[in-house]
Amino acid sequence: MIELNFSNMMEEVIGVKGITEKLLESFKNRVEEAHLQIVGRKWKELEFLELPDKETSEIKRIAKEIRGDSDNFLILGIGGSALGPRAILEALSPLHNLLKSPRIFIYDNVDPRTLKQILSIIDLKKTTVNVISKSGSTAETAASFMILWDEMKKAMGNDAAKRFVATTDPESGTLRKLATENNMRTLPIGEGIGGRYSVLSPVGLLLSEVIGIDSDELLKGAKDIHRKCSDHELWQNPAYMFGSLLYLMNTEEKRDINVMIPYADSLKSLSEWFCQLWAESLGKLGLGMTPYPSVGTTDQHSQLQLWMEGPEDKVVIFIRINNYGVDISIPGVFEDIEGMHYLSGHSLSGLIKAEEESTELALAKNGRPNLTINIPLIDAYHLGQLFHFFEIATAFTGFLIGINPFNQPSVEEGKNFTYGMMGKKGFDSKKLEVEQARDKKVCWKI
Amino acid sequence: MIELNFSNMMEEVIGVKGITEKLLESFKNRVEEAHLQIVGRKWKELEFLELPDKETSEIKRIAKEIRGDSDNFLILGIGGSALGPRAILEALSPLHNLLKSPRIFIYDNVDPRTLKQILSIIDLKKTTVNVISKSGSTAETAASFMILWDEMKKAMGNDAAKRFVATTDPESGTLRKLATENNMRTLPIGEGIGGRYSVLSPVGLLLSEVIGIDSDELLKGAKDIHRKCSDHELWQNPAYMFGSLLYLMNTEEKRDINVMIPYADSLKSLSEWFCQLWAESLGKLGLGMTPYPSVGTTDQHSQLQLWMEGPEDKVVIFIRINNYGVDISIPGVFEDIEGMHYLSGHSLSGLIKAEEESTELALAKNGRPNLTINIPLIDAYHLGQLFHFFEIATAFTGFLIGINPFNQPSVEEGKNFTYGMMGKKGFDSKKLEVEQARDKKVCWKI
Repeated sequence: MIELNFSNMMEEVIGVKGITEKLLESFKNRVEEAHLQIVGRKWKELEFLELPDKETSEIKRIAKEIRGDSDNFLILGIGGSALGPRAILEALSPLHNLLKSPRIFIYDNVDPRTLKQILSIIDLKKTTVNVISKSGSTAETAASFMILWDEMKKAMGNDAAKRFVATTDPESGTLRKLATENNMRTLPIGEGIGGRYSVLSPVGLLLSEVIGIDSDELLKGAKDIHRKCSDHELWQNPAYMFGSLLYLMNTEEKRDINVMIPYADSLKSLSEWFCQLWAESLGKLGLGMTPYPSVGTTDQHSQLQLWMEGPEDKVVIFIRINNYGVDISIPGVFEDIEGMHYLSGHSLSGLIKAEEESTELALAKNGRPNLTINIPLIDAYHLGQLFHFFEIATAFTGFLIGINPFNQPSVEEGKNFTYGMMGKKGFDSKKLEVEQARDKKVCWKI
Repeated sequence: MIELNFSNMMEEVIGVKGITEKLLESFKNRVEEAHLQIVGRKWKELEFLELPDKETSEIKRIAKEIRGDSDNFLILGIGGSALGPRAILEALSPLHNLLKSPRIFIYDNVDPRTLKQILSIIDLKKTTVNVISKSGSTAETAASFMILWDEMKKAMGNDAAKRFVATTDPESGTLRKLATENNMRTLPIGEGIGGRYSVLSPVGLLLSEVIGIDSDELLKGAKDIHRKCSDHELWQNPAYMFGSLLYLMNTEEKRDINVMIPYADSLKSLSEWFCQLWAESLGKLGLGMTPYPSVGTTDQHSQLQLWMEGPEDKVVIFIRINNYGVDISIPGVFEDIEGMHYLSGHSLSGLIKAEEESTELALAKNGRPNLTINIPLIDAYHLGQLFHFFEIATAFTGFLIGINPFNQPSVEEGKNFTYGMMGKKGFDSKKLEVEQARDKKVCWKI
């Protein structure tokens, strides 16, 4: 089971900039209120809490077909539709495309260079395309789907639809409509499941099965951590403690940046997945905190100087791996070189773990708060725990802050300008606004 | 030539939260002082400014050997020794390992899983290992070098040294010593060149030549932008304007997060390279700003909600690409679906550019400052411009802030704890400190 260690958040350890037990005590009512919203299922979007109980046979069935007839699996999706699958892929099958089949491509942009290159690599006849969109109307996913549909028609004629899987709303939306009309295989994203809370739905689970990872293990981990994070008592609930500490560090100490640094290359994408979840869910009404994606030890040589000595605006969240599964010994070479020889006889996992612990301590000694999530192993079971832990913590923190953690109202304006420029009906005035702004910009250019 | 557009930083455009011309005018003396430090070469570390004038024949000669005899090119290095090469690789040869030879691996960690996997993929007999470290004593690089040296000895016997290239200090340090003793090929990192200012030295240029990109083009771009960024007059110098605007937004408006969002998948690594440069250079004495790595359009579906409606603590730096070099048309399919059909007939590059412009405008309309760097094309020449532009801007901004932009004093403490745990001579007391802290931590765990 994952474990939360928050010593380096507490006054007893880091001094006056830390949180006191008394403050946490006085905060209990707030925790209770947020808890009641969760257990009372006050929001339909809390449906994500039920995902670990779903059965996966249809996902497994489709994945088996894909593994049987595809050299390539191409996901079209953006935001939560891409970040979750990518976090699973990189954590559980790093360097996948150099080692295993089918190769996986996740196209989550409208960059023509990237798509051109993917198309030059894959044989469409041996490719399954997984279009992931709740509605189907997300511009980026729609554009890439239209291109792939056309290309697949050219390659496969009337059999084109057979090479697609649509992961979408069970009933409504344009993607559901197209899938039904064309007789595509589909997988449902439940009505209450928002994009950034969807990784444990077919959005992430199909990819998981396609790369040979039993999706039930992800769900089992999520289920177990859910049990551990269901207690109303702050001191018994690591997700609530996590959220409460970060919230209090924000409100009491003005720390508005939350760095997430897992000590594993393969969890960098998990960190990016978390950043969407935390940013989009909480960044509202002038409130929220900025999550920062990072990876250790690498960023000790990139960001640590700033965290140690820059503005006191951060809390650092470590993810510590107890067992890397594999290891490599550092051999006894270069014995006459003092600056290297001390490493001989240690293992790489010993070194990376020592560096993680050292960085925690150096920050703490400098009065810089940090907390650590310990995971025993990077596997599907514990990855499922991490996903669900952060989802529960995020919804909880949203309720603490007093905002709706499930919407993203402020991205509409940008979309409307794009619709205007693309000539979508009803957005002419937006096009005009863009053109006026363009004229103004010319004056300030060097 | 790259171009800086800063309309959306100005009061005339975004209202009272913007910068006024008057403020910039009153700031001229500060700019002049910083400028004098640069033109007077007051710091030996300003040597990076000379890099565009270096000749590259030795780099080209070694790269030619590597291209002739290697299927794999493995870089061992961390921080600036990895971020620069990776930025070049991803910008100029995206999806490289699926398309081209030699395959490139950049190992910038001590994660045993990653190295195990790389070793399972590559044939050492057909691999060149490029160890990059100014001193050779960086623990992570030393550890991976020791492992690769041992493995290569097993594979190649007495010929092992021939499969290495050491990029290191021209005279001193353990890596230089080992390279000389073992008769390895070497390339110099000039005495005054710090890691994060080293991309245009052999650190980045060897990788560039190995992937078939003429390094002289990178240098030519740098040289040209240097000329454009040498004027003492703020309004004639985009690097100074860039630094001044971000500095003033920090000091006057308390905006301490600088998001960098290039609209190209292949520039995500450039954004990460910039983040090290900006964070480590400026994060000192409680000052500095937090650079945030991002990529468009992707992060519109991940971070934009927070930027639009979260705390007013950010400036967003767009990188806009005028010409993607390639393009794809969005075909006329799904004509009966209103939510998709408006896209037909547009190109992907049209869509991504429209989204970039829309996001700029939406932020500006919401009073959220942002600026845009326009680049004509993603090629070596313009990438060289971007690198050098940001390096000049960073040093300049460090002088504005009044700190030393070339050191990183606060990362030592963490290293010392690691040395203690690894049993390095003279660090016993540090080991003890770690153990004491460990005992204390056990109390705060759930």
